[in-house]
Amino acid sequence: MNLILLEPDEIQADGTAVISGKRARHVREVLQAAEGEEIRVGVVNGSTGIATILEDAKQLRLQCNWSGGISPVPRVDLLLAMPRPKVMNRLWPVLASLGVGRILVSNAWKTERSYFDTHVLEPEHIREGLVEGLQQARDTRLPQVSLHKQFKKLVEDQLDGFGPYAARLVAHPGDGVFPREKLAALPAAGRVLLAVGPEGGWTPYELELLGAHGFEAVSWGARTLRTDTACVVLLGLVQSVLG
Amino acid sequence: MNLILLEPDEIQADGTAVISGKRARHVREVLQAAEGEEIRVGVVNGSTGIATILEDAKQLRLQCNWSGGISPVPRVDLLLAMPRPKVMNRLWPVLASLGVGRILVSNAWKTERSYFDTHVLEPEHIREGLVEGLQQARDTRLPQVSLHKQFKKLVEDQLDGFGPYAARLVAHPGDGVFPREKLAALPAAGRVLLAVGPEGGWTPYELELLGAHGFEAVSWGARTLRTDTACVVLLGLVQSVLG
Repeated sequence: MNLILLEPDEIQADGTAVISGKRARHVREVLQAAEGEEIRVGVVNGSTGIATILEDAKQLRLQCNWSGGISPVPRVDLLLAMPRPKVMNRLWPVLASLGVGRILVSNAWKTERSYFDTHVLEPEHIREGLVEGLQQARDTRLPQVSLHKQFKKLVEDQLDGFGPYAARLVAHPGDGVFPREKLAALPAAGRVLLAVGPEGGWTPYELELLGAHGFEAVSWGARTLRTDTACVVLLGLVQSVLG
Repeated sequence: MNLILLEPDEIQADGTAVISGKRARHVREVLQAAEGEEIRVGVVNGSTGIATILEDAKQLRLQCNWSGGISPVPRVDLLLAMPRPKVMNRLWPVLASLGVGRILVSNAWKTERSYFDTHVLEPEHIREGLVEGLQQARDTRLPQVSLHKQFKKLVEDQLDGFGPYAARLVAHPGDGVFPREKLAALPAAGRVLLAVGPEGGWTPYELELLGAHGFEAVSWGARTLRTDTACVVLLGLVQSVLG
C-alpha cells in the first residue's frame, strides 16, 4: 500500500476518518507511522492528500488534508473473457494497479459458464481487489466493471455504448505484431479497447466477429502466454505508449 | 501446455518415450488426442518436434520425431530480489514463458533472510515451475537459475561472469523512463540485464551500488507496481524491443 484509500462515507465533515483492520495494521506495521506522523491518503474516485495520525488506539483516527486532484481515466479499457475464478481473483488488484478505465468481463465459447457463479464476481469482492491495486499504484480512480454473459450481444450491441474507441485490439498469439506506431499516433484523448481471450483462445467465429467490429489482431511475439500474463504484458505495452 | 516437454533421459534410443501423470492427463483431457494422433513435443534444452501416440494405456507411449532446433538464448537476464516465497513460486512459470536467459535470485536489504529457506528454491521445484512455463510458451530452453545471498558480492564480483551485458537496467518507480531507443539500438547479440527490487524497493545504498556498476534506473511510468507485476511488464517491454 503506497496510499491508504478511504471510502467516501468514511470521511467526516471535519476531514477526520477512522480506520481499522488491514489498513490500520499496514500503517502501524509496514509504514511504522505513529501518532502525529503523516501518511499518504486518497478517497475512492476522489482526491489524494496527506493525513495526520490523531490517535492510535484500537482504531486509527486520521485528520485528512486533500491537496491532490483525481487522476484522469486511464485511456485503455479491457474486454476480458472470464478466466478461472482463481485467476480472475488474482487479476483484480493487478489490473487496477496497471490502470484501466473499464473492465468488461465476458463469456466466450471456451469459457466455462460455471465460472460466472463465483464470489470472485460479487461487487464487494471486486471492489476489495481493485482497491488493493489502487493503493499499490497510489491511484484513487476505481475501474468500472461489468459482466457480460452474451459475447455476441456485447460485441454487436453494447460496445459502442462504452466507447468511442480510437483503436480496438484483440490479443491473439501468432502473426500479429504490436501496433506501436499506430497507438502513438492516436489523438491525445483517443481511447483503446483491448480484448484478451480465454485459456484455450478465441474461436475462429469469435475472432471474425471481433474483426467485423473493428478489432485488429495484436500479438506480443512468438511466445504463447497465459491469459493473465498476456493481460499484464499487453496492458503494460499499451500504457507505455499512451503514457 | 502448448508443447509437451520431455526430459532428455525419458527418450529412448528408438525415439520413443513414455509419459504419465500431469502431462498424460493433459494430452487426454485437454488436447483430447488418442492413439495414432500427433502432438507437439520438445526436449528440455533441445529440439522440438511431433510425436505420434503409439499406445494409450495406463501410460502414454510416444514415438518422437525431432525436426525443430532449439530456440536461441533469450537476450534478457533477470536479477530479482527474492520476493515472498508464494510470489516466487507463482513467478517461475511466468518468467519461463516470457523468456529469460538467466534468473539471478538475490538477497537485498528489504528481503527477509528467511525467504531463502523455502522449498520454492529447491532445484527440482524450480525446474518444475520453469518447465510449466516453457510448455505454455512452446519453448525448450530452460532459464538458468542461481541463488545469491550476498547482494554486494553479486554486484561487485560475480555479475561480470554472467555477462557481458550491453545494457544494465534497474527497475525503480518514479523518475526514470523506459529506454526504448537505447535498447532498439543495441547490437543484434547484445544482452540486457534487468534488476527488480524487493517489495519495499531498493535502499539508496543498493541503488548507488547498482549505479556504480552500470545500472540505469528505468521505470514503466508513474504508477508503482508490485514486484511481480513490474517483472512481467518490464520483461514484456524489453522483449518487445529486442524481439
